[in-house]
Amino acid sequence: MPPFRRVALIGLGLIAGSMALAMRRAGLAESITGHARSAETRAVALEIGLVDSVHATAAGAAAEADLVVLAVPVGAMASIAREIGPHLAPGCIVTDVGSVKQAVIEAVAPHLPAGVHFVPGHPLAGTEHSGPRAGFATLFRNRWCILTPPEDADPQAVARLRALWEAMGANVDLMDAPHHDLVLAVTSHAPHLIAYTMVGVADDLRRVTDSEVIKYSAAGFRDFTRIAASDPTMWRDVFLSNKAATLEILGRFTEELFALQRAIRREDGDHLHAYFTRTRAIRRGIIEAGQDVDAPDFGRSASDRGDSAS
Amino acid sequence: MPPFRRVALIGLGLIAGSMALAMRRAGLAESITGHARSAETRAVALEIGLVDSVHATAAGAAAEADLVVLAVPVGAMASIAREIGPHLAPGCIVTDVGSVKQAVIEAVAPHLPAGVHFVPGHPLAGTEHSGPRAGFATLFRNRWCILTPPEDADPQAVARLRALWEAMGANVDLMDAPHHDLVLAVTSHAPHLIAYTMVGVADDLRRVTDSEVIKYSAAGFRDFTRIAASDPTMWRDVFLSNKAATLEILGRFTEELFALQRAIRREDGDHLHAYFTRTRAIRRGIIEAGQDVDAPDFGRSASDRGDSAS
Repeated sequence: MPPFRRVALIGLGLIAGSMALAMRRAGLAESITGHARSAETRAVALEIGLVDSVHATAAGAAAEADLVVLAVPVGAMASIAREIGPHLAPGCIVTDVGSVKQAVIEAVAPHLPAGVHFVPGHPLAGTEHSGPRAGFATLFRNRWCILTPPEDADPQAVARLRALWEAMGANVDLMDAPHHDLVLAVTSHAPHLIAYTMVGVADDLRRVTDSEVIKYSAAGFRDFTRIAASDPTMWRDVFLSNKAATLEILGRFTEELFALQRAIRREDGDHLHAYFTRTRAIRRGIIEAGQDVDAPDFGRSASDRGDSAS
Repeated sequence: MPPFRRVALIGLGLIAGSMALAMRRAGLAESITGHARSAETRAVALEIGLVDSVHATAAGAAAEADLVVLAVPVGAMASIAREIGPHLAPGCIVTDVGSVKQAVIEAVAPHLPAGVHFVPGHPLAGTEHSGPRAGFATLFRNRWCILTPPEDADPQAVARLRALWEAMGANVDLMDAPHHDLVLAVTSHAPHLIAYTMVGVADDLRRVTDSEVIKYSAAGFRDFTRIAASDPTMWRDVFLSNKAATLEILGRFTEELFALQRAIRREDGDHLHAYFTRTRAIRRGIIEAGQDVDAPDFGRSASDRGDSAS
């Protein structure tokens, strides 16, 4: 028997769609129902078989579910929680997939009735694409999913959600919400804002240099554009809802950048060389941690090279 | 008959090694000789068959060559040019692979005798690895190589070098050196400094967050570490020798970053959303220009997914 009887996906974008496909493949839900604000998205989700049924309202989808997944932008969480709260079945587990956790807890928890288990979550997986057609069943494979249950969370609810994510291929970690938000500000939120900024600068200069910025993007800039192509609404909400930690990291970043700019201006080659040597070691740590492969591709896909290596 | 009789590679790192392998595969040189400062590098290059012979001095390698490729860090170009200048054969073509062009021209041109053709070049290709073992024959395939010949350059020498790069798989463009340096400051030099900076910030914070920064790097930070793992000596020289253009772009970058930080602080969601929507369009331009693939992998290699897609 599947571990969940009826899963309700609120929001039917990349993450929810990938969850639906992963759950179907591993037989984790008897039925999956869904809601999206847009009628077109609902129709697509039904047509491509992500869900067994769709509802025009979030409350309709959430009623009678034993697992409700909030997969909407962080800024939309409060109103969804307010709407579904009165309709949730006792014992139901509510989780989310938002990129920040403290703001989501503040937005959602007050609207949930007693007897409903709220276990916030964040799968560290994504692509630059969005919408119901962007999902794929292996999106979470070997990626981390961080759960941030409150101290008084029901251990059995946490264990069931953990098992679900593991069955979808993810590795699961638990931590408290403020710590999650700081770690993600470093590993994700600040890098995204920086990438957006650099791509914006290049866009301004494009008028000067015609299409050369795009043409010669393989020299490093391309990796920034991939990051900066992520969903604008999701990222607006991330920055607004993890404001303090993001600004803290950006402050440190600006300080360091000024120090390096000064080293360039003063032609202090030793300072630059020492700095670049230190950062190189971090890359090795990431490869050893299994979060990337040590292949000389610099942005090419491995298959580009595989068929042509001599 | 191969287009070049004797090619001398001065410096035997990633780029020179890849050129050697590409030239051998396409039959572009009767013989390839090489020089590296380190005896160990010379031994490796000989052992793995990059070159037919090695020389303990750059002058020894360059003598009698009809093509000399300067593949050393930009900061080493002047002394190499001074050393080889008196030994170059009349009619010989000298080129380089440096990431900046004005500084290389200033460093090299004064040391070359009349009758030698200097055609500066820059292949926009690389990996995070360095050294003679890092090279591979397809590194330049479908990548751009920019030549920046002076106005009075011999058209036949330019054409021969162009044909060589095309035979190694590259697409060739010609532009003047100052323009090259500005375009590369945008597409490569500033992004590299920014990536180095962000990785440095994370390294400082690692003491706070233990190994979490590495563990959760897939969330965006990983792409920065790939860029920031490039050769420290090469990049020190790039920033010192393209100082003005790099500082100019970094100045614009800081301005934009401050504007976005202010938008976060003021919770100006419309500003953020509009900015992120604009940058997303640039990504599409890059995919249309054929400089990356539109696959939902966000840093995974395509082969990671290919074997597991349902």
